[in-house]
Amino acid sequence: MPVATQLVPAELVLVGPILDIVNYTGIAVFAVSGALVAARKNLDIIASIFFATVAGIGGGSLRDVFTGVQVNWILSPAPLVLCIAVGILVWLLPTRIWPERALEWFDAGGLAAFAVFGTGKALSLGAAPLPAVAMGVMSACMGGVIRDVVAGVPSILLRNELYVTAALLAAGVFLGLTMAGLSSGLATILATLCGFCLRGAAIHWGLRLPRHKG
Amino acid sequence: MPVATQLVPAELVLVGPILDIVNYTGIAVFAVSGALVAARKNLDIIASIFFATVAGIGGGSLRDVFTGVQVNWILSPAPLVLCIAVGILVWLLPTRIWPERALEWFDAGGLAAFAVFGTGKALSLGAAPLPAVAMGVMSACMGGVIRDVVAGVPSILLRNELYVTAALLAAGVFLGLTMAGLSSGLATILATLCGFCLRGAAIHWGLRLPRHKG
Amino acid sequence: MPVATQLVPAELVLVGPILDIVNYTGIAVFAVSGALVAARKNLDIIASIFFATVAGIGGGSLRDVFTGVQVNWILSPAPLVLCIAVGILVWLLPTRIWPERALEWFDAGGLAAFAVFGTGKALSLGAAPLPAVAMGVMSACMGGVIRDVVAGVPSILLRNELYVTAALLAAGVFLGLTMAGLSSGLATILATLCGFCLRGAAIHWGLRLPRHKG
Repeated sequence: MPVATQLVPAELVLVGPILDIVNYTGIAVFAVSGALVAARKNLDIIASIFFATVAGIGGGSLRDVFTGVQVNWILSPAPLVLCIAVGILVWLLPTRIWPERALEWFDAGGLAAFAVFGTGKALSLGAAPLPAVAMGVMSACMGGVIRDVVAGVPSILLRNELYVTAALLAAGVFLGLTMAGLSSGLATILATLCGFCLRGAAIHWGLRLPRHKG
Repeated sequence: MPVATQLVPAELVLVGPILDIVNYTGIAVFAVSGALVAARKNLDIIASIFFATVAGIGGGSLRDVFTGVQVNWILSPAPLVLCIAVGILVWLLPTRIWPERALEWFDAGGLAAFAVFGTGKALSLGAAPLPAVAMGVMSACMGGVIRDVVAGVPSILLRNELYVTAALLAAGVFLGLTMAGLSSGLATILATLCGFCLRGAAIHWGLRLPRHKG
Repeated sequence: MPVATQLVPAELVLVGPILDIVNYTGIAVFAVSGALVAARKNLDIIASIFFATVAGIGGGSLRDVFTGVQVNWILSPAPLVLCIAVGILVWLLPTRIWPERALEWFDAGGLAAFAVFGTGKALSLGAAPLPAVAMGVMSACMGGVIRDVVAGVPSILLRNELYVTAALLAAGVFLGLTMAGLSSGLATILATLCGFCLRGAAIHWGLRLPRHKG
């Protein structure tokens, strides 16, 4: 892949086991958020599996297509198996077991995980820092947008809480720590936690940046 | 294309002439559904062509992009010509000639046809069975979703009738019959009929699976 | 890239400097339209950058993915830098400085520019005329559709003004002039002007083609 500039040595940003764990965690929690959308609409179990799958692999598929690699769920059936299992399991559970804002919290986990994984994968493919961060933020945010658009519900992204900002923090912290020489595994864990905590704070306290004045 | 597992011998699932016919049938009937959406919104003839094209080639374009092959309407202008002809023809006809649920019936044809064709194309490219079925279901369902989202109407998929289920039946029957040794042509016809009949039954009698209990 | 037919000699449709200028102009004005959507919804500055980026590079990313080339904002950070700058700048400005239909006018510029650039890029990659025009129209229209869908607002495309038609005019004029032997630069300028003026006339006078009679 030809790139304009390449500031991060490829060996620093291998997609290692911890980044892989974060990826599958992101797929699983986004899948839960998709199945919860289906449960809220009282859809059937097949639709629950469909929404779990769309939410779990939507953003990542877009990322893979944009970076020019084959989507990961064709190469290995593991992401699909995970989404299908989540779709069945969540459908079998009654809605009342979930806390009130469960969907937002699972979405927050997926947001942080995918922002970091997307940035790491783009860097490992040789992307320059800015496109890599943009890829992380885009794939993290678009998973939820695709889920919400397909389900016909207003996107979480539009609530004017810190949403894109949390994805940007996760991606930026990962890039910064990696460039500072931290191991990919530690950078992954710290960056995912930063993004998740900021989004969690936004959910819990309604944190926001100043709105446009109009 | 490297794949994790490959259970179906490639020679069993050639994209033969009957699968091709099913593909063009799917494009045509989805195109009709797109033009009917434009007609219901009283749009002009160019918008009718646009919606016929988006509905006719949307799901298939996604499938091609996800499998890493070039979208079929760049390689050959035939799908575009078909969609344009449908968009013009449907626009010239008055709405009253169509039965009340015409849009749903044409959509049902596209759903079944694309589920089978998507599965067959993915198998012929070497995909494992589960990803192939997922590709078939995804490309079948997303064509209608893209049409409805672009048109700003609630998606058929959300009506809690058998929709994803019909696509899954068509894709699963095709896979099963192919693995059982049936010829690709016969498997294509039988699987498409199964999917279309189940979706048709859902349209006619409002068939559904149990809803999520809440 | 194998294509079915190739009527336009590749050397006639080089993606030259003027086509590049038109591309960046299209990205910039679409980015303004995205930031204006965010401003109308009183979102924060990061969301403004996000919408500017989605609107600025959405349609072009789809075009690149469909033609099987890597999306342009990974190869070079320039489109991203442009979108980020626009997102910040528009957010800092008060809404009252913009004329009432500013969003539509910037969108019109992006529509015409992307229709021409998409057609030219597809031709330069060896696409036949019809797919090339379809690629131009699709990438021009879908940029705005993606922006509006992500923002949860009704798409401009559905207002039944000349919208798809203006993109089609720009793409068709570019194809015609190029095939008639005009230089790529002159064809680009004339075709973009044609598309922009037609869309502008539609905005200003509410021009439309006959609606479907129902």
